[in-house]
Amino acid sequence: MRAVVFRDTETPVSVEEVELAAPKAGEVRVKIAAAGVCHSDLHLRQGDWVVPTPLVMGHEGSGVVVELGEGVTSLAIGDHVVLSWVPPCGECRYCQQGHEARCQKVATVVAPQGVLFDGTSRLSVAAGEGGGEDEEVHHYLGVSSFAEEVVVPASGAIKVRDDAPLDVISVVGCAVATGVGAVLNTAAVEPGSTVAVIGCGGVGLNVVQGAKLAGAERIIAIDVVAEKTATALQFGATDRIDASAGDSVEQLLALLPDGVDYAFDAIGRTFTTEQAIQMLGLGGAAVIVGLPPTGAKASFEPLVLAEADQRILGSNYGSVRPSIDIPALVDRYMDGQLKLDPLISGRRSLEDAADALNELQGGGVLRTLLIP
Amino acid sequence: MRAVVFRDTETPVSVEEVELAAPKAGEVRVKIAAAGVCHSDLHLRQGDWVVPTPLVMGHEGSGVVVELGEGVTSLAIGDHVVLSWVPPCGECRYCQQGHEARCQKVATVVAPQGVLFDGTSRLSVAAGEGGGEDEEVHHYLGVSSFAEEVVVPASGAIKVRDDAPLDVISVVGCAVATGVGAVLNTAAVEPGSTVAVIGCGGVGLNVVQGAKLAGAERIIAIDVVAEKTATALQFGATDRIDASAGDSVEQLLALLPDGVDYAFDAIGRTFTTEQAIQMLGLGGAAVIVGLPPTGAKASFEPLVLAEADQRILGSNYGSVRPSIDIPALVDRYMDGQLKLDPLISGRRSLEDAADALNELQGGGVLRTLLIP
Repeated sequence: MRAVVFRDTETPVSVEEVELAAPKAGEVRVKIAAAGVCHSDLHLRQGDWVVPTPLVMGHEGSGVVVELGEGVTSLAIGDHVVLSWVPPCGECRYCQQGHEARCQKVATVVAPQGVLFDGTSRLSVAAGEGGGEDEEVHHYLGVSSFAEEVVVPASGAIKVRDDAPLDVISVVGCAVATGVGAVLNTAAVEPGSTVAVIGCGGVGLNVVQGAKLAGAERIIAIDVVAEKTATALQFGATDRIDASAGDSVEQLLALLPDGVDYAFDAIGRTFTTEQAIQMLGLGGAAVIVGLPPTGAKASFEPLVLAEADQRILGSNYGSVRPSIDIPALVDRYMDGQLKLDPLISGRRSLEDAADALNELQGGGVLRTLLIP
Repeated sequence: MRAVVFRDTETPVSVEEVELAAPKAGEVRVKIAAAGVCHSDLHLRQGDWVVPTPLVMGHEGSGVVVELGEGVTSLAIGDHVVLSWVPPCGECRYCQQGHEARCQKVATVVAPQGVLFDGTSRLSVAAGEGGGEDEEVHHYLGVSSFAEEVVVPASGAIKVRDDAPLDVISVVGCAVATGVGAVLNTAAVEPGSTVAVIGCGGVGLNVVQGAKLAGAERIIAIDVVAEKTATALQFGATDRIDASAGDSVEQLLALLPDGVDYAFDAIGRTFTTEQAIQMLGLGGAAVIVGLPPTGAKASFEPLVLAEADQRILGSNYGSVRPSIDIPALVDRYMDGQLKLDPLISGRRSLEDAADALNELQGGGVLRTLLIP
């Protein structure tokens, strides 16, 4: 099949012919309908994170189940699914406590080793005509959706309703789950709260609409791109701050002198994380949603954090329970409570993956869907 | 009356004759039975924190109500009370949400300005024989218990049972509320959790016994003083780490390779805060209980915090609701669930305040009670 392969930061991302092995026990094969291009894919290409390479890119996607591995009873051929980049093992203490986004097997095996649960990959590139061994190719976050098909653990293919537009809901698997989940699960924002959102890209806009769903009273959208904060107003923001016009913290405190109850960093640079912390009022929580490069450090004043009873919350995948939250998010979209269509900037072919990444880097687009 | 006055870091702390005005509306006068000497008093003397001076020291204490201001109906003359250094106003949004430890009026008026709710002090030093004006003296955290008597808001004098030893339970007002509260309220430690406690002084030992109350499975006591970790074992710790024998984080990870669910920094230096964060496993929470100097900064890796769904929690006064939690903590002591007597290193007079502070600085003692 055709798939977008990342080899190293020196080699341009390109479509290659990749072999996809049949699903093993507990796995399924899914024909991809659409795969969203996310900032994490960009981090990956830039070498910000340590990952095993070569790999097939992509960790957001949707599709149709086309083959079941041995013992899979939770899914059937033809099911519409959204892919989850945390396929919960169901057995570790975190899964059993209901904290599936912390799944230990995903955090220690699947994600860092670029493999499925049994420690091996279903992806490879066949040896050339000169012979030799096939080249092993890694999965990215147990998904690798920039491809015609994927093989994933059954727990990573979440069955959703058939009447939802299958390409559009691909973004529920990462951008929406991460953004809305950070608000509803990680932070558990209460009605009447004040919320600042730094960064109004694909994830930030979902933080904004999550805050609206939670009943926040004030939602302050912050970005250097005026177009993005304008979109945020459509997603439920009540105020906007132009981060290019001066210090965001000062502007926020001019608007809300007591600070905010929740500040979400949906960018993930050291200074945006620190800004989020500095925007907090008494009892406030800064929530880290955007991901910085490995090794980057942010600082805070422990005295202030303690005296003001404040919190800094890391949010991995919106602290979601995929099998419960993803179908519920799709339902909310179908009920008109969540906007997805305005998140989608365009549709391109797998061959355009590098261009789509360049556009995302340029800052002008939200979600581009790759259609295999 | 006699009271221990702090003027500045150059002037030795000493007992002076201080005037105490009658309680105004909503306030009460309490005759002090005992006042514990806490690390915060030491920070104060060292000039680590910005506070209005001169002030009467002390923020932990117990006593008997001897005079009621106008309109006070919640207390009666003769009531045994434990003093709370957060006297909740009951009116701000945080009090009304049940987050009394975050009381806005305390955080913005009482604590930073060294006054009571009306913005004035009941403390002064009479002009000398040469005449001139009386000198205004500030309250410390709305308490100022290193004195024969205090005038405090009625909400800061918490009625407790008469059969509890009044001097011993003075420590409930700060050390116990802060330590046990950080475990039960701020962190809400679940049964079966793993808990590291950095620093086994007056507050740290209360974190240890709070973790035991919460049903933690492993409680690792960490200190440079072997005697303190030995005491921690009596308070419920299951393991001890000698922080003077090498890196605490490495020692902890040798004991528990997956890290801990909760790490409490009961010291409050930059490096202990960072150690607490580095000790966390998946989904873990670092809780800042010990207070560092103003302006000190600690750093963390946002990527790790986010990917591992971790949290950094500031704990002000153990996130307690004083009127509910303090009597309950006294009950737990009387029921044998909490140890208080081993926390008390000795009893001294107000005149010995400076010596008691020196001893605390030396590291050998837990709580010295000043008995007026």
